[in-house]
Amino acid sequence: MQPSPDTRTRILATARELFHGRSYADVGVKEICAIANVPKGSFYHFFPSKQDLAMAVIDDMADDWAHGFVAEAFDRELPALERLDYMVDAAYYWQKAAKDIEGRMPGCLFGNLALEVSTRDDVLRAKLNAVFQKASARFHETLDEAVETGAMAPLNTGATAQAMLAFLEGVILLAKTRNDPDVVLELGPAIKTLRIELTVEN
Amino acid sequence: MQPSPDTRTRILATARELFHGRSYADVGVKEICAIANVPKGSFYHFFPSKQDLAMAVIDDMADDWAHGFVAEAFDRELPALERLDYMVDAAYYWQKAAKDIEGRMPGCLFGNLALEVSTRDDVLRAKLNAVFQKASARFHETLDEAVETGAMAPLNTGATAQAMLAFLEGVILLAKTRNDPDVVLELGPAIKTLRIELTVEN
Repeated sequence: MQPSPDTRTRILATARELFHGRSYADVGVKEICAIANVPKGSFYHFFPSKQDLAMAVIDDMADDWAHGFVAEAFDRELPALERLDYMVDAAYYWQKAAKDIEGRMPGCLFGNLALEVSTRDDVLRAKLNAVFQKASARFHETLDEAVETGAMAPLNTGATAQAMLAFLEGVILLAKTRNDPDVVLELGPAIKTLRIELTVEN
Repeated sequence: MQPSPDTRTRILATARELFHGRSYADVGVKEICAIANVPKGSFYHFFPSKQDLAMAVIDDMADDWAHGFVAEAFDRELPALERLDYMVDAAYYWQKAAKDIEGRMPGCLFGNLALEVSTRDDVLRAKLNAVFQKASARFHETLDEAVETGAMAPLNTGATAQAMLAFLEGVILLAKTRNDPDVVLELGPAIKTLRIELTVEN
Protein backbone atom coordinates (compact mmCIF):
# COMPACT_ATOMS: atom_id res chain seq x y z
CA MET A 1 0.00 0.00 0.00
CA GLN A 2 1.29 3.44 -0.93
CA PRO A 3 1.36 6.12 1.79
CA SER A 4 -1.53 8.55 1.23
CA PRO A 5 -1.00 12.06 -0.15
CA ASP A 6 -2.50 13.27 3.11
CA THR A 7 0.61 11.94 4.86
CA ARG A 8 2.77 14.10 2.61
CA THR A 9 0.66 17.16 3.47
CA ARG A 10 1.02 16.44 7.17
CA ILE A 11 4.80 16.06 6.95
CA LEU A 12 5.05 19.27 4.97
CA ALA A 13 2.89 21.31 7.35
CA THR A 14 4.81 20.02 10.37
CA ALA A 15 8.21 20.69 8.83
CA ARG A 16 7.22 24.14 7.70
CA GLU A 17 6.07 25.13 11.15
CA LEU A 18 9.16 23.71 12.86
CA PHE A 19 11.69 25.12 10.37
CA HIS A 20 10.03 28.52 10.58
CA GLY A 21 9.70 28.58 14.35
CA ARG A 22 13.16 27.20 15.03
CA SER A 23 15.68 26.47 12.28
CA TYR A 24 16.57 23.94 9.61
CA ALA A 25 19.47 22.28 11.43
CA ASP A 26 17.65 22.27 14.76
CA VAL A 27 14.81 20.08 13.51
CA GLY A 28 15.45 16.46 12.59
CA VAL A 29 13.52 13.99 10.45
CA LYS A 30 12.84 11.86 13.52
CA GLU A 31 11.11 14.74 15.33
CA ILE A 32 9.10 15.71 12.25
CA CYS A 33 7.88 12.12 11.87
CA ALA A 34 6.96 11.92 15.56
CA ILE A 35 4.96 15.16 15.52
CA ALA A 36 3.33 14.48 12.14
CA ASN A 37 2.64 10.94 13.36
CA VAL A 38 4.05 9.18 10.31
CA PRO A 39 6.51 6.28 10.14
CA LYS A 40 9.99 7.03 8.80
CA GLY A 41 9.37 4.80 5.80
CA SER A 42 6.51 7.01 4.65
CA PHE A 43 8.66 10.08 5.14
CA TYR A 44 11.38 8.76 2.83
CA HIS A 45 8.76 7.65 0.32
CA PHE A 46 7.82 11.31 -0.18
CA PHE A 47 11.11 13.00 0.64
CA PRO A 48 14.28 11.06 -0.16
CA SER A 49 16.26 13.55 1.95
CA LYS A 50 15.83 16.45 4.36
CA GLN A 51 16.98 18.72 1.56
CA ASP A 52 14.08 17.48 -0.61
CA LEU A 53 11.75 18.28 2.24
CA ALA A 54 13.18 21.79 2.59
CA MET A 55 12.72 22.35 -1.16
CA ALA A 56 9.06 21.34 -0.83
CA VAL A 57 8.60 23.54 2.27
CA ILE A 58 9.99 26.54 0.39
CA ASP A 59 7.68 25.87 -2.58
CA ASP A 60 4.71 25.44 -0.29
CA MET A 61 5.37 28.68 1.60
CA ALA A 62 6.18 30.62 -1.59
CA ASP A 63 2.94 29.38 -3.09
CA ASP A 64 0.83 30.45 -0.12
CA TRP A 65 2.67 33.71 -0.03
CA ALA A 66 2.19 34.40 -3.74
CA HIS A 67 -1.52 33.60 -3.63
CA GLY A 68 -2.13 35.13 -0.22
CA PHE A 69 -0.97 38.46 1.06
CA VAL A 70 1.51 39.13 -1.72
CA ALA A 71 -1.28 38.84 -4.28
CA GLU A 72 -3.39 41.19 -2.16
CA ALA A 73 -0.57 43.67 -1.62
CA PHE A 74 0.39 43.80 -5.27
CA ASP A 75 -3.21 44.01 -6.51
CA ARG A 76 -3.14 46.02 -9.73
CA GLU A 77 -6.33 47.78 -8.68
CA LEU A 78 -4.35 49.57 -5.97
CA PRO A 79 -2.35 52.69 -6.84
CA ALA A 80 1.29 51.55 -7.23
CA LEU A 81 2.70 53.25 -4.16
CA GLU A 82 -0.11 52.02 -1.93
CA ARG A 83 1.00 48.49 -2.75
CA LEU A 84 4.27 49.15 -0.96
CA ASP A 85 2.40 50.31 2.14
CA TYR A 86 0.17 47.27 1.91
CA MET A 87 3.18 44.96 1.70
CA VAL A 88 4.71 46.49 4.85
CA ASP A 89 1.37 46.24 6.68
CA ALA A 90 0.97 42.64 5.59
CA ALA A 91 4.45 41.77 6.89
CA TYR A 92 3.55 43.40 10.18
CA TYR A 93 0.22 41.61 10.62
CA TRP A 94 1.77 38.31 9.61
CA GLN A 95 4.52 38.61 12.23
CA LYS A 96 2.16 39.95 14.86
CA ALA A 97 -0.31 37.10 14.36
CA ALA A 98 2.50 34.55 14.63
CA LYS A 99 3.84 36.18 17.78
CA ASP A 100 0.38 36.35 19.35
CA ILE A 101 0.10 32.58 18.91
CA GLU A 102 3.65 31.41 19.63
CA GLY A 103 5.00 34.21 21.82
CA ARG A 104 7.86 34.52 19.33
CA MET A 105 8.27 36.52 16.16
CA PRO A 106 9.43 33.91 13.63
CA GLY A 107 10.65 36.31 10.95
CA CYS A 108 10.60 35.47 7.26
CA LEU A 109 11.10 31.76 6.55
CA PHE A 110 13.01 32.56 3.37
CA GLY A 111 15.33 35.05 5.04
CA ASN A 112 15.91 32.68 7.97
CA LEU A 113 16.80 29.77 5.69
CA ALA A 114 18.89 31.94 3.39
CA LEU A 115 21.20 33.03 6.20
CA GLU A 116 21.29 29.57 7.74
CA VAL A 117 22.03 27.38 4.71
CA SER A 118 23.49 29.54 1.92
CA THR A 119 27.12 28.73 2.64
CA ARG A 120 26.44 25.01 2.85
CA ASP A 121 23.78 24.08 0.35
CA ASP A 122 23.83 25.46 -3.16
CA VAL A 123 20.60 23.74 -4.14
CA LEU A 124 18.62 25.39 -1.34
CA ARG A 125 20.45 28.65 -1.90
CA ALA A 126 19.43 28.69 -5.59
CA LYS A 127 15.84 27.91 -4.60
CA LEU A 128 15.74 30.76 -2.09
CA ASN A 129 17.38 33.08 -4.57
CA ALA A 130 14.61 32.28 -7.06
CA VAL A 131 11.98 33.14 -4.42
CA PHE A 132 13.68 36.48 -3.80
CA GLN A 133 13.90 37.16 -7.52
CA LYS A 134 10.17 36.59 -7.89
CA ALA A 135 9.44 38.88 -4.95
CA SER A 136 11.75 41.50 -6.34
CA ALA A 137 9.94 41.27 -9.72
CA ARG A 138 6.71 42.29 -7.95
CA PHE A 139 8.41 45.40 -6.60
CA HIS A 140 9.93 46.02 -10.01
CA GLU A 141 6.55 46.00 -11.83
CA THR A 142 5.12 48.26 -9.16
CA LEU A 143 7.91 50.79 -9.50
CA ASP A 144 7.68 50.72 -13.31
CA GLU A 145 4.00 51.50 -13.01
CA ALA A 146 4.65 54.24 -10.45
CA VAL A 147 7.10 55.88 -12.84
CA GLU A 148 4.77 55.48 -15.85
CA THR A 149 1.87 57.08 -14.02
CA GLY A 150 4.09 59.88 -12.70
CA ALA A 151 3.66 58.83 -9.06
CA MET A 152 7.45 58.57 -8.82
CA ALA A 153 10.24 60.42 -10.57
CA PRO A 154 12.20 58.16 -12.97
CA LEU A 155 14.72 55.92 -11.23
CA ASN A 156 16.49 52.61 -11.66
CA THR A 157 13.40 50.53 -10.97
CA GLY A 158 15.13 47.14 -11.14
CA ALA A 159 17.85 47.98 -8.63
CA THR A 160 15.48 49.93 -6.39
CA ALA A 161 13.11 46.94 -6.34
CA GLN A 162 15.92 44.75 -5.01
CA ALA A 163 16.86 47.40 -2.46
CA MET A 164 13.24 47.47 -1.25
CA LEU A 165 13.15 43.71 -0.84
CA ALA A 166 16.48 43.83 1.01
CA PHE A 167 15.10 46.53 3.29
CA LEU A 168 11.98 44.52 4.09
CA GLU A 169 14.11 41.48 4.95
CA GLY A 170 16.42 43.63 7.08
CA VAL A 171 13.54 45.24 8.95
CA ILE A 172 12.07 41.81 9.71
CA LEU A 173 15.53 40.67 10.87
CA LEU A 174 15.82 43.57 13.31
CA ALA A 175 12.23 43.08 14.51
CA LYS A 176 12.87 39.38 15.11
CA THR A 177 15.99 40.21 17.11
CA ARG A 178 13.81 42.38 19.34
CA ASN A 179 10.91 39.93 19.20
CA ASP A 180 8.81 42.98 18.43
CA PRO A 181 6.63 43.23 15.29
CA ASP A 182 6.12 46.96 15.96
CA VAL A 183 9.62 47.51 14.55
CA VAL A 184 8.13 46.60 11.14
CA LEU A 185 5.47 49.29 11.55
CA GLU A 186 7.96 51.87 12.74
CA LEU A 187 10.69 51.37 10.14
CA GLY A 188 8.88 49.65 7.26
CA PRO A 189 7.17 52.67 5.68
CA ALA A 190 10.62 54.15 4.91
CA ILE A 191 10.73 51.58 2.09
CA LYS A 192 9.19 54.22 -0.17
CA THR A 193 12.07 56.61 0.35
CA LEU A 194 14.67 54.19 -1.09
CA ARG A 195 15.95 55.28 -4.47
CA ILE A 196 18.66 54.11 -6.82
CA GLU A 197 19.03 56.60 -9.63
CA LEU A 198 19.42 55.75 -13.30
CA THR A 199 23.02 56.00 -14.37
CA VAL A 200 23.47 58.23 -17.36
CA GLU A 201 25.34 56.51 -20.18
CA ASN A 202 27.56 58.88 -22.09
CA MET B 1 47.31 22.54 36.01
CA GLN B 2 44.91 25.12 34.64
CA PRO B 3 44.35 25.17 30.89
CA SER B 4 46.22 28.12 29.37
CA PRO B 5 44.47 31.28 28.19
CA ASP B 6 45.90 30.49 24.78
CA THR B 7 43.61 27.46 24.70
CA ARG B 8 40.63 29.73 25.25
CA THR B 9 41.74 31.97 22.38
CA ARG B 10 42.09 28.97 20.10
CA ILE B 11 38.62 27.66 20.95
CA LEU B 12 37.15 31.11 20.40
CA ALA B 13 38.82 31.66 17.03
CA THR B 14 37.79 28.21 15.81
CA ALA B 15 34.18 28.59 16.94
CA ARG B 16 33.90 32.04 15.45
CA GLU B 17 35.09 30.86 12.07
CA LEU B 18 32.83 27.79 12.07
CA PHE B 19 29.70 29.59 13.34
CA HIS B 20 30.22 32.34 10.79
CA GLY B 21 30.99 30.04 7.87
CA ARG B 22 28.23 27.55 8.66
CA SER B 23 25.75 28.04 11.51
CA TYR B 24 25.39 27.73 15.26
CA ALA B 25 23.39 24.49 15.31
CA ASP B 26 25.51 22.89 12.59
CA VAL B 27 28.72 23.06 14.60
CA GLY B 28 29.16 20.94 17.70
CA VAL B 29 31.48 21.22 20.69
CA LYS B 30 33.17 17.97 19.66
CA GLU B 31 34.11 19.34 16.24
CA ILE B 32 35.32 22.64 17.69
CA CYS B 33 37.55 20.77 20.15
CA ALA B 34 38.93 18.54 17.39
CA ILE B 35 39.79 21.45 15.09
CA ALA B 36 41.13 23.67 17.89
CA ASN B 37 43.05 20.64 19.17
CA VAL B 38 41.89 20.94 22.78
CA PRO B 39 40.46 18.25 25.07
CA LYS B 40 36.79 18.55 25.99
CA GLY B 41 37.68 19.13 29.63
CA SER B 42 39.57 22.32 28.75
CA PHE B 43 36.65 23.45 26.65
CA TYR B 44 34.22 23.18 29.55
CA HIS B 45 36.71 24.86 31.85
CA PHE B 46 36.40 28.03 29.77
CA PHE B 47 32.87 27.63 28.44
CA PRO B 48 30.39 25.80 30.66
CA SER B 49 28.01 25.54 27.68
CA LYS B 50 27.81 26.12 23.95
CA GLN B 51 25.67 29.16 24.72
CA ASP B 52 28.52 30.62 26.82
CA LEU B 53 30.82 30.06 23.88
CA ALA B 54 28.41 31.83 21.52
CA MET B 55 28.22 34.80 23.92
CA ALA B 56 32.03 35.03 23.89
CA VAL B 57 32.14 34.70 20.09
CA ILE B 58 29.66 37.57 19.71
CA ASP B 59 31.70 39.73 22.13
CA ASP B 60 34.89 38.89 20.31
CA MET B 61 33.48 39.72 16.88
CA ALA B 62 31.73 42.86 18.12
CA ASP B 63 34.99 44.00 19.66
CA ASP B 64 37.00 43.48 16.48
CA TRP B 65 34.23 45.10 14.52
CA ALA B 66 34.02 48.14 16.81
CA HIS B 67 37.78 48.67 16.79
CA GLY B 68 38.27 47.72 13.17
CA PHE B 69 36.29 48.86 10.19
CA VAL B 70 33.42 50.35 12.15
CA ALA B 71 35.84 52.66 13.93
CA GLU B 72 37.34 53.59 10.57
CA ALA B 73 33.97 54.07 8.90
CA PHE B 74 32.59 56.23 11.68
CA ASP B 75 35.77 58.29 12.04
CA ARG B 76 34.69 61.76 13.19
CA GLU B 77 37.27 63.30 10.88
CA LEU B 78 35.17 62.19 7.91
CA PRO B 79 32.19 64.28 6.80
CA ALA B 80 29.09 62.62 8.25
CA LEU B 81 27.58 61.36 5.01
CA GLU B 82 30.88 59.94 3.80
CA ARG B 83 30.84 57.66 6.83
CA LEU B 84 27.76 55.93 5.45
CA ASP B 85 29.54 55.32 2.13
CA TYR B 86 32.57 54.06 4.01
CA MET B 87 30.43 51.65 6.02
CA VAL B 88 28.89 50.20 2.84
CA ASP B 89 32.33 49.89 1.21
CA ALA B 90 33.72 48.22 4.33
CA ALA B 91 30.86 45.69 4.32
CA TYR B 92 31.60 44.98 0.66
CA TYR B 93 35.35 44.49 1.10
CA TRP B 94 34.81 42.36 4.19
CA GLN B 95 32.44 40.02 2.35
CA LYS B 96 34.54 40.00 -0.79
CA ALA B 97 37.72 39.10 1.13
CA ALA B 98 35.90 36.28 2.91
CA LYS B 99 34.49 34.95 -0.35
CA ASP B 100 37.90 35.14 -2.06
CA ILE B 101 39.30 32.89 0.68
CA GLU B 102 36.40 30.50 1.31
CA GLY B 103 34.50 30.60 -1.98
CA ARG B 104 31.43 31.54 0.04
CA MET B 105 30.03 34.84 1.19
CA PRO B 106 29.47 34.29 4.93
CA GLY B 107 27.24 37.32 5.54
CA CYS B 108 27.11 39.14 8.86
CA LEU B 109 27.73 36.86 11.85
CA PHE B 110 25.29 38.88 13.96
CA GLY B 111 22.53 38.79 11.36
CA ASN B 112 23.07 35.08 10.76
CA LEU B 113 22.88 34.24 14.46
CA ALA B 114 19.93 36.58 15.04
CA LEU B 115 17.76 34.80 12.49
CA GLU B 116 18.95 31.38 13.58
CA VAL B 117 18.58 31.57 17.36
CA SER B 118 16.19 34.42 18.24
CA THR B 119 13.11 32.26 18.66
CA ARG B 120 14.94 29.73 20.83
CA ASP B 121 17.44 31.54 22.99
CA ASP B 122 16.54 34.78 24.75
CA VAL B 123 20.01 35.20 26.21
CA LEU B 124 21.70 35.16 22.80
CA ARG B 125 18.87 37.23 21.34
CA ALA B 126 19.39 39.96 23.97
CA LYS B 127 23.12 39.90 23.30
CA LEU B 128 22.63 40.28 19.55
CA ASN B 129 20.06 42.99 20.11
CA ALA B 130 22.62 44.92 22.18
CA VAL B 131 25.15 44.62 19.33
CA PHE B 132 22.57 46.01 16.90
CA GLN B 133 21.71 48.83 19.27
CA LYS B 134 25.35 49.84 19.49
CA ALA B 135 25.67 49.75 15.70
CA SER B 136 22.49 51.75 15.34
CA ALA B 137 23.86 54.35 17.80
CA ARG B 138 26.80 54.93 15.43
CA PHE B 139 24.39 55.68 12.60
CA HIS B 140 22.35 57.85 14.95
CA GLU B 141 25.32 60.07 15.94
CA THR B 142 26.27 60.36 12.29
CA LEU B 143 22.81 61.47 11.25
CA ASP B 144 22.60 63.94 14.13
CA GLU B 145 25.85 65.45 12.96
CA ALA B 146 24.68 65.51 9.33
CA VAL B 147 21.57 67.41 10.37
CA GLU B 148 23.52 69.81 12.62
CA THR B 149 25.97 70.66 9.86
CA GLY B 150 23.17 71.05 7.32
CA ALA B 151 24.34 68.10 5.20
CA MET B 152 20.88 66.59 5.65
CA ALA B 153 17.45 68.12 6.11
CA PRO B 154 16.03 67.49 9.60
CA LEU B 155 14.56 64.02 10.05
CA ASN B 156 13.89 61.43 12.74
CA THR B 157 17.54 60.51 13.17
CA GLY B 158 16.96 57.72 15.71
CA ALA B 159 14.44 55.82 13.60
CA THR B 160 16.33 56.47 10.37
CA ALA B 161 19.51 55.11 11.98
CA GLN B 162 17.71 51.85 12.73
CA ALA B 163 16.30 51.75 9.21
CA MET B 164 19.82 52.15 7.83
CA LEU B 165 21.15 49.30 9.93
CA ALA B 166 18.20 47.14 8.85
CA PHE B 167 18.93 47.98 5.23
CA LEU B 168 22.59 47.04 5.56
CA GLU B 169 21.64 43.70 7.12
CA GLY B 170 19.05 43.09 4.41
CA VAL B 171 21.48 43.91 1.61
CA ILE B 172 24.03 41.50 3.08
CA LEU B 173 21.27 38.87 3.35
CA LEU B 174 20.38 39.22 -0.33
CA ALA B 175 24.05 39.22 -1.33
CA LYS B 176 24.68 36.06 0.68
CA THR B 177 21.72 34.36 -1.00
CA ARG B 178 23.35 35.13 -4.34
CA ASN B 179 26.84 34.42 -2.99
CA ASP B 180 27.76 37.71 -4.64
CA PRO B 181 29.37 40.57 -2.70
CA ASP B 182 28.75 42.89 -5.68
CA VAL B 183 25.12 43.11 -4.54
CA VAL B 184 26.40 45.13 -1.56
CA LEU B 185 28.11 47.57 -3.94
CA GLU B 186 25.09 47.81 -6.20
CA LEU B 187 22.37 48.30 -3.59
CA GLY B 188 24.27 49.53 -0.52
CA PRO B 189 24.74 53.18 -1.50
CA ALA B 190 20.93 53.63 -1.46
CA ILE B 191 21.30 53.63 2.34
CA LYS B 192 21.66 57.41 2.17
CA THR B 193 18.25 57.84 0.57
CA LEU B 194 16.40 56.26 3.52
CA ARG B 195 14.45 58.80 5.53
CA ILE B 196 11.98 58.67 8.37
CA GLU B 197 10.49 62.09 8.92
CA LEU B 198 9.95 63.74 12.27
CA THR B 199 6.35 63.51 13.36
CA VAL B 200 4.88 66.85 14.22
CA GLU B 201 3.33 66.92 17.70
CA ASN B 202 0.27 69.13 17.88
